[in-house]
Amino acid sequence: MDSYTIGIDLGGTNLRIAAYAPGASNQQFLARVDLPTRVGAGPASVVKEMAEAIRGLAEGLPRMELRGVGLGTPGPLELPAGILHGLPNLPGWDRFELRREFECALAGAGVRCPVHVESDANVAALAECVLGAGSALGVDSLCMLTLGTGVGNAIILGGAIFSGAHGMAGEAGHLTIWPDGVACNCGNTGCLEVYASATAVRRMAEGAADSGVAPGLKAWRESTGALDAQAVFQLARQGDRDALGIFTTVGIALGIALAGLVNTLDLRLYVVGGGLAGAWEFFSPAMLRELNTRSYVYRLVNERLTDRRIAIVPAVLGPDSGLLGAALLALGAQSREPEI
Amino acid sequence: MDSYTIGIDLGGTNLRIAAYAPGASNQQFLARVDLPTRVGAGPASVVKEMAEAIRGLAEGLPRMELRGVGLGTPGPLELPAGILHGLPNLPGWDRFELRREFECALAGAGVRCPVHVESDANVAALAECVLGAGSALGVDSLCMLTLGTGVGNAIILGGAIFSGAHGMAGEAGHLTIWPDGVACNCGNTGCLEVYASATAVRRMAEGAADSGVAPGLKAWRESTGALDAQAVFQLARQGDRDALGIFTTVGIALGIALAGLVNTLDLRLYVVGGGLAGAWEFFSPAMLRELNTRSYVYRLVNERLTDRRIAIVPAVLGPDSGLLGAALLALGAQSREPEI
Repeated sequence: MDSYTIGIDLGGTNLRIAAYAPGASNQQFLARVDLPTRVGAGPASVVKEMAEAIRGLAEGLPRMELRGVGLGTPGPLELPAGILHGLPNLPGWDRFELRREFECALAGAGVRCPVHVESDANVAALAECVLGAGSALGVDSLCMLTLGTGVGNAIILGGAIFSGAHGMAGEAGHLTIWPDGVACNCGNTGCLEVYASATAVRRMAEGAADSGVAPGLKAWRESTGALDAQAVFQLARQGDRDALGIFTTVGIALGIALAGLVNTLDLRLYVVGGGLAGAWEFFSPAMLRELNTRSYVYRLVNERLTDRRIAIVPAVLGPDSGLLGAALLALGAQSREPEI
Repeated sequence: MDSYTIGIDLGGTNLRIAAYAPGASNQQFLARVDLPTRVGAGPASVVKEMAEAIRGLAEGLPRMELRGVGLGTPGPLELPAGILHGLPNLPGWDRFELRREFECALAGAGVRCPVHVESDANVAALAECVLGAGSALGVDSLCMLTLGTGVGNAIILGGAIFSGAHGMAGEAGHLTIWPDGVACNCGNTGCLEVYASATAVRRMAEGAADSGVAPGLKAWRESTGALDAQAVFQLARQGDRDALGIFTTVGIALGIALAGLVNTLDLRLYVVGGGLAGAWEFFSPAMLRELNTRSYVYRLVNERLTDRRIAIVPAVLGPDSGLLGAALLALGAQSREPEI
């Protein structure tokens, strides 16, 4: 009997669930369900909704065996317990026992199979490793930065998610870049996230427009009423000096962070994903220049060990990477006990 | 037949070689040889000298089986090839094929056994994990910072050295702390190493003495002619404000670095070793304050998961940790293929 897994991408806005046949390539799901995440209804209700949707998918595949369910969730997620802690985008979910409650809801819906839970950044990186940039380069380890509302991060070693002792490895979005810099929601100042996220691009653009020295940004705001990362990207494409300068700051911050990650981890592949990675052409020159200056490991390897160069690349997979990674997680082969 | 291993600590000044019986605790070597490292004679000559000393040790233990030889060397060391690259303290050794040449020299001396090579910071951390701070806490993973002439770093995961794809993981001594800071030999500016090494303490003390605003440091230099890290430590013990201020800078830099490492790796144990770690009482308050402010992973785990707290501790083992770690490396059980 052919088998399949089910992946779930639980976001603050969208809840995506899909059935995946092992060996299929990206986005070739057997079936999928897309729902809004009813955050306000509370975690118990959302988990029940997930379980019902999974039962529906499973009933539609009666001649196949469900090997497991993988769930990618916003973090921090305590592992192995599977407990959520203080999620900024899911108020009221703090200390929710996600793994246990989800297993109970699945059993209640009559679905019996192993359950795997991981943070969303980790499962997206797993997909990128197994089916994206990692497989393209022929490596099974990578470090990924995801530039979205915040900056997500994940480390994959030997084809498995590296979760750390408590499930909280891969928070390099909160590496300190400028110690006396902008305040971050995490309590630190000068985090990577406050210089290299879509939120940061918008903040920098608003600041430049307010200052009166960035006429292009100011004019855009006056004509459209908004100045988000997409607007800054459009202005950069038109050659606007101030928009380009914002992406240079993004690149410098990323380069400093990557230099630290390369010096610490010495992996062969670092992937930059998320919506803001679409502006690769604008931030990557500064990023690579900074990395080359600040990491002697990067220089040494790429000058001398040319058959095993260190690669910094944009993500290959699209927005379904989290869903795909959750489905891969459910295969179980990728699970590694947290190191303690 | 009882067995033993031989560990070698190859330094820029001293060459230490010892025979170790598995299971023995720290510093209980069966026999040891301490020699000066004749750097000027060239690497081939030093390697031959090592092989002869090993033959001598082995001849003194005729009724025991030599299981393997472990060699800790200054890095960067390319693995698995075992080639040295651009060593600042061993001029003329660049691109030396240490593993191959050492194996040939051992064969020439009539010693036949497996050979393991690793960087000195890595083997010292292995010893600290297996027989020092790691075993004291009951964990088999840690990240270590060694504060000496420079700042060494190593990562141990699941009882094995994490070498990275090219043998160059664990260069967190070159994490960027202040992007526009002091120039480092590695080509970067503002590295941890230029704020938290013995060399950095001396530089900061000299600068303070020159500035005319640090009377205690100035008076010490005038009366002794020198102002090294040990002198700054003595002045700090006497309550000298400027000496204490230097250790506060050391602590802040270490705290920023540790916050990044905790956020990235999420291990349970971080060990600070090396000569300068003797000033723990003076730098650790600022270090822990900075870490607590800058790492929400540290705060979250230590406030909520109190049975699995993250510990930051001084090294337990003394200056023989490198020798001991090299001997442990030779047991082979700790060797893990580099992740690629």
